[in-house]
Parts: sequence; C-alpha cells; structure tokens
Amino acid sequence: MKTITLPELFCIGVVHNTILSLDEAPKNFDISDHIGTLEIDPRYQEGLEGIKAGMTIVVLFWLHRSSRDILKVYPRGDKSRGLSGVFVTRSPVRPNPIALSELTVLAVEGNRLQVRGLDVLNGTPIIDIKKKI
Amino acid sequence: MKTITLPELFCIGVVHNTILSLDEAPKNFDISDHIGTLEIDPRYQEGLEGIKAGMTIVVLFWLHRSSRDILKVYPRGDKSRGLSGVFVTRSPVRPNPIALSELTVLAVEGNRLQVRGLDVLNGTPIIDIKKKI
Repeated sequence: MKTITLPELFCIGVVHNTILSLDEAPKNFDISDHIGTLEIDPRYQEGLEGIKAGMTIVVLFWLHRSSRDILKVYPRGDKSRGLSGVFVTRSPVRPNPIALSELTVLAVEGNRLQVRGLDVLNGTPIIDIKKKI
Repeated sequence: MKTITLPELFCIGVVHNTILSLDEAPKNFDISDHIGTLEIDPRYQEGLEGIKAGMTIVVLFWLHRSSRDILKVYPRGDKSRGLSGVFVTRSPVRPNPIALSELTVLAVEGNRLQVRGLDVLNGTPIIDIKKKI
C-alpha cells in the first residue's frame, strides 16, 4: 500500500475540567458525570451556531498524551480478557489517538460550551464537533 | 487562545467502493446500503485482531476532497432550513474534515474488511477504527 500523507490537523479548541491525571479519567463518556467547558478558538466560533443547552453533541478530541505505536491492548486494562487489537476497543492508545465522546450541552456562552460526560484530561485539544445521529 | 500545533495524522488505510462522485454518495451511513472494502495498511493490521463478521464498527475517515474553511452550511443541502454552524451538522465540510460512520462488518480477510453502510468516496483515507459503544 502506498503511503498517503494527510494535511495538518487543526486544534479548534481545548477542554477545561478537573481531570488532572489519567488515573482520575473515567474509562469512557458513557460512565462519566464530569462537567467541564469546551473553549472553542474564536476563529471557529461561527461554526457553533445552533448548538443549544440540552443537545447531545459528538466531540472528537486529540489525546495528546497517548502512545501511537501500540496495536494490541488489554481492553479497559482487564488482563483476564486477553489482548485485543486496538481497533476493536475504545483504548486511548492507537495510531491516531482520537477520542470520541457524546456529551450533553448544559450551557452555551459565546465560544464556551459547558458539557457533561467528559472522560479526557484538562487541556486536551478538540478537533471536531458533530450532531449526534 | 494560543495556537496549539498537533502532530501528523497517519493514514491507516483506504476505502475501495463504487462511489465515484459526490453526487453518488449517500448523505450519511444510516441511509446507506453501499458495500465496499476497508484496506488497512499492513503495518497496522495487528490492530484489527478481534474484528469479526457481524460486528458494527465506528470508522473515522479523512474527507480529502472537503473544504476546510466553511463554518456555516445548509444542513443536507436543504435551503428551507436556513444556515447552521457546521458543528451542529454532519456536513463533510468543516475545519478538520473527519467523517464518522458506523459500518457492519460482512467479512474479514487479513488486512481487508468488507463492510456495509459506506457514505464516502472510493479512495477516501481511513484514520481510525473503534468499537461501537
């Protein structure tokens, strides 16, 4: 397979929350009640128009602290289940460490979205937001 | 907000299907019966271990033909609904043109996954595969 080079990924914003170490991070959004703020870079703020409190949004994060060279993991750290390929898990380690969370919007103020369900560290870069299907 | 530079995104594979123009592409995976193949670069093949026919997988694509400088769109091209911010839609245009599809695995052969539900063009780069929650 020939190597394809992809263009630069933009950081559209950053998360502010109280999750300061990996030990404190819930294993997934679906088991998290953590509240925090998505601060969107003002140059992308126009793209938020229509996001309202009460919506569920799909947010993609770039896990800047994750390993990119691991292809097999113990799912959720449970060694009794044996090793799996990373692509059949939600492990944060993977060639492109992108996390996908479904978050509830609690409030919108300009370029800041208050959300519930965070499972990523304070300071994690945001790369996309989508409507949930 | 200070600018954060993100590391290089890797292309982990490429899609082969019969969708050759944007006019032929379904608007989303949830209304697509298109079958095709995800060819994963052999250097990442180990990460597929555990993926089996019948599973639903979440696949992230890099939409290499999409505009990156549009922040407002008519959702699904319907002008009667007015303009929305791209982050409250599933539009392919967005600062980081990443598409998220939930696909049914029909067969696995080495580094090739036959899947159903494709809504992206033939030749689209693949950047991640995850378990569906």
